[in-house]
Parts: sequence; C-alpha cells; structure tokens
Amino acid sequence: MAYNLLKGKRGIIFGALDNKSIAWKVAEKAHEEGAIFTLSNTMTALRFGQLDQLAKHTNSEIISADATNVDDLTKVFERSTEVLGGKVDFVLHSIGMSLNVRKKRVYNDLDYNFLNKTLDISSVSFHKMLQVAYKLDAINDWGSVLALSYIAAQRTLYGYNDMADAKALLESIARSFGYIYGREKKIRVNTISQSPTYTTAGSGVKGMDALMDFTNRMSPLGNADAEECANYCIMMFSDLTRKVTMQNLFHDGGFSNMGMSLRAMKMYNKSLNGDLGVE
Amino acid sequence: MAYNLLKGKRGIIFGALDNKSIAWKVAEKAHEEGAIFTLSNTMTALRFGQLDQLAKHTNSEIISADATNVDDLTKVFERSTEVLGGKVDFVLHSIGMSLNVRKKRVYNDLDYNFLNKTLDISSVSFHKMLQVAYKLDAINDWGSVLALSYIAAQRTLYGYNDMADAKALLESIARSFGYIYGREKKIRVNTISQSPTYTTAGSGVKGMDALMDFTNRMSPLGNADAEECANYCIMMFSDLTRKVTMQNLFHDGGFSNMGMSLRAMKMYNKSLNGDLGVE
Amino acid sequence: MAYNLLKGKRGIIFGALDNKSIAWKVAEKAHEEGAIFTLSNTMTALRFGQLDQLAKHTNSEIISADATNVDDLTKVFERSTEVLGGKVDFVLHSIGMSLNVRKKRVYNDLDYNFLNKTLDISSVSFHKMLQVAYKLDAINDWGSVLALSYIAAQRTLYGYNDMADAKALLESIARSFGYIYGREKKIRVNTISQSPTYTTAGSGVKGMDALMDFTNRMSPLGNADAEECANYCIMMFSDLTRKVTMQNLFHDGGFSNMGMSLRAMKMYNKSLNGDLGVE
Amino acid sequence: MAYNLLKGKRGIIFGALDNKSIAWKVAEKAHEEGAIFTLSNTMTALRFGQLDQLAKHTNSEIISADATNVDDLTKVFERSTEVLGGKVDFVLHSIGMSLNVRKKRVYNDLDYNFLNKTLDISSVSFHKMLQVAYKLDAINDWGSVLALSYIAAQRTLYGYNDMADAKALLESIARSFGYIYGREKKIRVNTISQSPTYTTAGSGVKGMDALMDFTNRMSPLGNADAEECANYCIMMFSDLTRKVTMQNLFHDGGFSNMGMSLRAMKMYNKSLNGDLGVE
Repeated sequence: MAYNLLKGKRGIIFGALDNKSIAWKVAEKAHEEGAIFTLSNTMTALRFGQLDQLAKHTNSEIISADATNVDDLTKVFERSTEVLGGKVDFVLHSIGMSLNVRKKRVYNDLDYNFLNKTLDISSVSFHKMLQVAYKLDAINDWGSVLALSYIAAQRTLYGYNDMADAKALLESIARSFGYIYGREKKIRVNTISQSPTYTTAGSGVKGMDALMDFTNRMSPLGNADAEECANYCIMMFSDLTRKVTMQNLFHDGGFSNMGMSLRAMKMYNKSLNGDLGVE
Repeated sequence: MAYNLLKGKRGIIFGALDNKSIAWKVAEKAHEEGAIFTLSNTMTALRFGQLDQLAKHTNSEIISADATNVDDLTKVFERSTEVLGGKVDFVLHSIGMSLNVRKKRVYNDLDYNFLNKTLDISSVSFHKMLQVAYKLDAINDWGSVLALSYIAAQRTLYGYNDMADAKALLESIARSFGYIYGREKKIRVNTISQSPTYTTAGSGVKGMDALMDFTNRMSPLGNADAEECANYCIMMFSDLTRKVTMQNLFHDGGFSNMGMSLRAMKMYNKSLNGDLGVE
Repeated sequence: MAYNLLKGKRGIIFGALDNKSIAWKVAEKAHEEGAIFTLSNTMTALRFGQLDQLAKHTNSEIISADATNVDDLTKVFERSTEVLGGKVDFVLHSIGMSLNVRKKRVYNDLDYNFLNKTLDISSVSFHKMLQVAYKLDAINDWGSVLALSYIAAQRTLYGYNDMADAKALLESIARSFGYIYGREKKIRVNTISQSPTYTTAGSGVKGMDALMDFTNRMSPLGNADAEECANYCIMMFSDLTRKVTMQNLFHDGGFSNMGMSLRAMKMYNKSLNGDLGVE
Repeated sequence: MAYNLLKGKRGIIFGALDNKSIAWKVAEKAHEEGAIFTLSNTMTALRFGQLDQLAKHTNSEIISADATNVDDLTKVFERSTEVLGGKVDFVLHSIGMSLNVRKKRVYNDLDYNFLNKTLDISSVSFHKMLQVAYKLDAINDWGSVLALSYIAAQRTLYGYNDMADAKALLESIARSFGYIYGREKKIRVNTISQSPTYTTAGSGVKGMDALMDFTNRMSPLGNADAEECANYCIMMFSDLTRKVTMQNLFHDGGFSNMGMSLRAMKMYNKSLNGDLGVE
C-alpha cells in the first residue's frame, strides 16, 4: 500500500546490491511512494550485484562511484541533480565494510591498514557525501539524509569487530554534520540503528544466525526486517518528520531497551539444564 | 496535505484542551489522515477548554474521564470500541500536571501529597491506561500507543521541578509495558520527547519564554511546534513504524544532541560583554 | 587493606539488613576507612536482621526509621549529627521493596496501592531524605550522597516488574536534587547501578540465578559482588570524586555496554543444538 | 593528602606536556600515591614541554614515542616493564590533536588527510596502545587503562570540529577493547569525560573562554579542573574500582545531565534584556 509520501521528491540511494539489501528495499518503497532517484554503488558491486534490475524497475539511473572518493561523489551529486531535474530531497547511505572482519583479523590483532579502510568506507564516506553535497548546494532545504547503523555503536557484540567503532564514528558524523546542515539549510541528518538483518553484506559476521535468534527472542516485536526498515526510512524522508535531526533511531523491535526477556531466558535456561526455573 | 496514513484506523486521544494543545493538533491530523477516534479529558478540562469544537470538526465523541481512575479509563475504552465499531489501533497520552509547580513549591520544598498527585496524573495514569486496555483486550495487534514526554526526563532544567521525575517515570512505564504489550500483542509503546511548546498547560513553567529562546537557538532546526509534533505522532501511529517500540523519540530540532551552538553562544556572549570572541 | 579514605568523615547508612546487604559491606568498609556513622532501617528490619552485630562491630548507633516518614527521617538526621558530633559527610540510600513483586502481581496486573508503596519506599524516600537533610542543613559542603540502583532503570528485565520504574524514578530524583544540592551546597548526589547481587532483598526476583548466570557470562569482568560495590561506594564518598554529580555509575563488570559476549553466546547456543558454530 | 592508593603499582602516562596538562597532574598524584611509572610523549612535545622537570620530580624515565607508531609503542611498553621491574598496572592515554582545528578548516570544509591524522592520533593510537600491550602481555591482571575524553563525543559543540568524532571513536575503542581485555585478563578500560579544561592543548579550540563560562554556570559544582580530574584518575587506577569497565565516566560537575541551570539562564537572559524574568 502506498501513500504518495515522497511525491515530487528526488533522491540518491547509495549501497543497494541485491534484493536482500536494505537500500534495495528503500529504492522499491521510494519508487512506490512517488520519488525519483539515482542509484550508486562501486564498480565491483555493480558487476556482482543485480542493480540493473532495480534500476529498470524503478526507472533510475545508476552512477558508479567509490564513496571514499570525493571526485566520484561530486560526480554522483552533479549527475543526479542533472538527471532528476533539480536538487535532491533525500540521500541514503547504506555502506559498510571491514577487511578485518573478512580476513578474520580479530579485534586484538587488527591490521591498521584494514582499520583505516573500514573507517574510510563505512564512516568517513558519509562525511564526504555530506561535504560534497554541501559545497555543491545539492540538497533542498528541509531535505533528509539517513545512514544505516547498528547497536554495536553503543554496545559491544562478539565478532562485530572494528565495524562497531566504524558505526560509532558514523553516528558521530551524523550529529556533527547534522548541526551544520540543520543550522544552514534546515536539512536533517539521522542514523537508523537496525536489527541484525540478513543481507549479503551482513553475512560475513561471525555467528550471525545464533545472534539473530537471540536478538529475535529478546525483542518484544522480534527482529525488524529489511522491508520494515525501508518503511521507516520512507517515513524519515517524508515531510512528516522535519524536526527530527542528529538522532540515532533504533528500529529493532525493542531490542535496544531490553535487558532480558522471558523468551530469551527460556532458551538460555535450557542450556543450564532447565533446573533454574525462570518459568 | 494528507496521505491517508491512518485510513480505517480507530483511536483514543487523551488530553486535548484547546487549539494550542498538541493533542488537539494530533486529533486534527488524525482526522485528515482518515482515522476515527474518541476524545477524552477531565470534567474540568471539558468545562474550561473548547473540546466540543474539536469533537464537532472531527466527528468525535467526547468521553469525560479522570485518567487516574481505573473505572473511568475502563469506561473510555469500552465506550470507544463501541462507538468506533471495534478495537482501537492507536492511543495518545498527553497528560501532565504538577501542583508543586502550580503552587510554586520548589524542588527542595516539595509537598509530598502534591508529588504523589504529579506522579499519579502524569505517569501512573499511563500505566493504568495500558493495563485497562490490556485487560479489556481493547487494542488491535500492531497497534501503537504514544505518550508525550520532555527532555527533563534525562537532564535537569531549572524550574521544571517534579515534572522531570514524572517524565522519567513515564518513559520507564513505556519501556516496561512496551515489553509486555509487544511480546503478547505486537503492540508498540513509545514516548515522544518534544521541544518546549507553547500550550496552555506548559505556560505554568517558570521562565518559559527565555528557555524557549535558548532551546530555539541551540537547536539547529529550531524548536519543533505542536503541529510538527502532531505529524510525528501520525507517523508513529501509521503502519510504517511497526517495529519501533520502547523508545523515547526526540522531536526537538536537534536540541537533545547539542552541547553548544553558535547562535546560542553568540547570545550568551553578549552578556559577557562580547569580548570573548566566539565569532 | 585500608587507606584512611574516610578519616574524620561522618555518615548515615540506610538499609543494612544482614551480612549479605551491600549497605552492610559499605558500613564495614567505611569503618575500616576511618569513618564514623549511624545505621538506620525499619523496625521490622531491625527485628529480623542482624544489625546489632554490625553496630557493635563498627561502633555505630542504630536509629530506627521508616524512610517514607518525614518525621522519622528528621529524627535520623538530628540524632546522627548529635551522636556523631557534627554534620554528616556522606549518606547511603540502599532501600527498595515491591509488594507487587512479593505478591506475584505481574506488570500487566499491578495493584496500584502496591505500586504507590513501591515508589514511595524505593524512590520518593530518597527525595524525602535529601529534602530533610537540606532543610536541617545536615550535610557538610562537599558531602556525597549515594543511592543504589539497577540497570532495569534503562532496560526492561523480565520479572523485575515495577521495581524498574522505581529505579528510573530514583535516578531522576538523584539528578534533580543533585542540581539543587550541588548549586547551593557543593554536595554531590549520584546513583550506583550495581550488578544483580545475592542479597536477602534481591532474592524475591524471579529467576534470579539464571539471570545472574547470564549477566556474569555477558560481563567481561563478571558480576560485581557486594563487597566490590562497597569499595566503589567508599570511593564515591571520598574526597577524590568531588566533581562527580548527577551521574548514574554502572558498577557491573561491563554488562551495561555489552550487546553479546562470546561466553553468553556459547551457553545460549547449546540450546540451539550447538550447530550454529559461534566458536 | 595521600592515601597510598597506588602503592606498589607501576604505570605508563602518555601525554603530559607542561604543568597545565591533566596527564602532568596525574603523574604528580600517582607519585604521591606511591606508584612508579614512565612518561611518554612525542619528540616535539619533549622539546617544547617541560617534561624533564616532571620526570625529575617523580623519579620517572621519559620514553619518547609517536603514539601512532606501533614500533614506538612496543618500545615504550618493553622499556617500561624493564625500568619499572615488571608488568604495568595502569596506563593513561591523554592524547588528542586536530590539524583541521589548528588550520581553521571548519567541519563542512574538512581536509581529509587532516581528518585521517586526527583519528589516528586521537583515537586509533589508543587501540594501538592496547593491542601492543596485549600482544606483549605487558599489563597485570586487574590492571586499569584510561583515556581522556570529552562530551563532544555525545553532543555537538560549536567549534570542536572533528575532535568530536575522534572522541566518539575513542570511546568506542574503549568499549570494544574493554570487552576483550576484561574477558581475557580482567583488565578494565574506561574513558573519563572531563569538563573543558585550560590546558596548552585545549587552548586551540574556538571561543574556549566563553564556553567555559557557560559550562561553569551550567554545572552545579562548576567545571572540574585538571587536578580534580587527576584525583578521579587515581581512583580509577586503584583497586577500589576493579569491576568498572567499558564505561565513559563524566567528571564535569554535573554538566552532562543539565538541561538548563538558573545561573546560566540568568546570564543568558541579560542578553535578552532581562525582561523575561526567570527569577
């Protein structure tokens, strides 16, 4: 069901890879809600993903870019305003990658070149995006910029490694730039802290299935999935949330404010031989 | 502009008094967005407010109730489901009052009967509302319940007095009951922490104008007003935010994450004789 | 090992019951560190506990009081300054009780008279204590006031019931009064959010053992025990922490900032048949 | 007055420059409290600071090191354990620098090489320190590691620029490594979020005096100074805080939990012509 929430709005969506991606779902929903937008990802992602299919379905142009490269980002914003016929109203940053995770370097044995790359790709790219847009004056007043984050920014999760630090940095950048962009252009900048989600990107994290079982039982509403996250993004892009900025918004079925649930405790107790009686 | 975001939804709105009330604006917007609902407030409020006018405009029945009275609340939920033709989908709690504030009892000279009333009216009433609804099974699965809060729940503001403690308690109740209601019925419970807002209720707080000038200059987007708050409430009642629960959502133009802004500092500096040069 | 950290300091310790109590350990440590103090608890607690033994060991006078009664509290502060030979330097509030928990009224079936008592005993008593002390001018400048809290104030834990709301209210009172007392008398007011601890009072909470196993495995340093908590209280009473106020300080082995640990996940996984391989 | 709190303990103190430095005060206090330690800073700092004087006074060896260089850090830990006669018990990280601040590049016109340096010097250096120590097994069980932070990690302050992001990253590293180090070695890792402090390093920040006037009036206990911060560090290095880890501890006279104080509002009001009457 669509509401025309983004009718007449233009945007840029970074980071869609395949139909499991949150960014992919956001593109689909934004299309349904009346927006026009461009899609951007790296050359490698374009080669291995299925972005063509999404572009076709949503009538969008794909603009390849390395989000750590200021020239590439400049090109994306310039080309987007050109193609879309004006400044953009929303931007989604759904980008993150850790070579330390991929190469199985644990957190007490990080490779510092990898860490540098993790931060550049997953966090500093967001600043670059905002600074490029700011300098080009490429976002309309009362526009909305979102980046996807994760609760590891606040609490340590085994195996999430240097991505935790990257997300903390990302959320800080959202606050810092949100202040400037709000003050100068009435543009809001927020992060959405999403439940662990089955995506091609997320699948590298250790023990993902077990963790998702745990978070699902801990969350009173269960884990939020990619489509539900897309709905929340649409809401944050709409005109109904204009005064929300510099926030990290948990979209996680309640997980972030749970200490221990009955369902998770029951499962945990099985391992303790069931003789502790939490029932 | 309306989107039909609440088409087919039923609700109850507690706490509208006059056209400055946030609850009043929520009622207007909910009506525009296709919802039907009842309105509830105390007998006194009904006498001194202009609720008839709102009821007429939105085609709503008014049900008088003391929100600290379980029987009254039971009546509100029973009558509402009857009038509206089914269980409700959303509830707004916009209720708060401190006799200590009214009677100018400062925080280190509280009257404990007044404090008891502050907590009962401003916080425990929310639990009663939720417990009554729960027992009557009066809210549909995936329904949404909201209460309005204020940042005094986290940070002390001169003059806000025991309302700060009431808001902290209110937000805790939202979390605690949000867990139960989420787990059992998929119903979400959240609070919105709103900018200081000119309402008839808010006008009792000491130094309101000065404070609002400060928060306005501190907030990159400026203070959020009652109408913008109503928009955010609509979003939280819509189906686009189904997995958000147990959260306290700041709707404040960015104030909550500001330490010091250029604009507020400039004003502050004038008093320091302007010779400290923050420019 | 003692350091004379509280040499020459006078205090009041509320809430010691038996040698499992955190307050009991605080009294022992405070004595070792050179403080003199009085002990206070209810008549019932005095009858069923072993406070005489502690009083003897630490050379302290016991003053019975209902901490919800302003007259009783006045008596405690008056008698204490008399017995100790001057204003006090520190106060410990270690008081909490829920009839809803005891009578097994679950959170969606609370008895509101019980809730009222929970809040009065566990939270408002702290305000009363502070207000009485303030009016009597019974605490020295740069004094330190502590209350014991629990992470349920921030995150919902199954079975903790209305004590969660009481702790949220308690922490808010610490902030609100901390502002006044800091501004006027340089007195600091903080709460310590302690690991779940085996105490006679804590034993009423559902599934305590299982929860403690979980939090112990989640916390990189394991659960903090009563004696370790007492050490932290001593530090907060000492002159080395004079500028810390209005804070809630987690003393929990790291639990509060953990999302998921390897050790807890391993135990959890056993129940998932061990085939998810988080190793 | 000294308590022998660090008797028999060995440590490393990074970042003392001159007698205004917090690290300098920590060294003095640690010496008074019975600790032995080494001092480390960059070659440039050694040349322009007065570290020799401190080294002499505290009987400490100076080991020059670039804290972004893993080899240098290795040398510091190896030499320290050699000089001090065993593994260390505490480490202080008091290091931060932003070329963007120094070169007056505002936050929406950052130089990304400078940003990279800001993060490497102010944040990643802490990870390097911890990883080097971990690999060398250079810290005793139940040791304590501290880094100095600032509230800009949570809330945006005009002019603090990319140091805000650096502090957010620093605090995240403390949590992430705190988990590992706690689990494996019972070593705690925390950050102290200190009031704005007059130091030679801090003096580069725009409008420092005005900001300090504001935070001083906002904080019920006033700003905390370098010496008071040193006391708090000693407490965190002592054996009385063994179960505190992964925390960011505000040492700021209450500023972090203030929304608006009477004293700050009065000053602010002067600029509003005093006619708003907050008294």
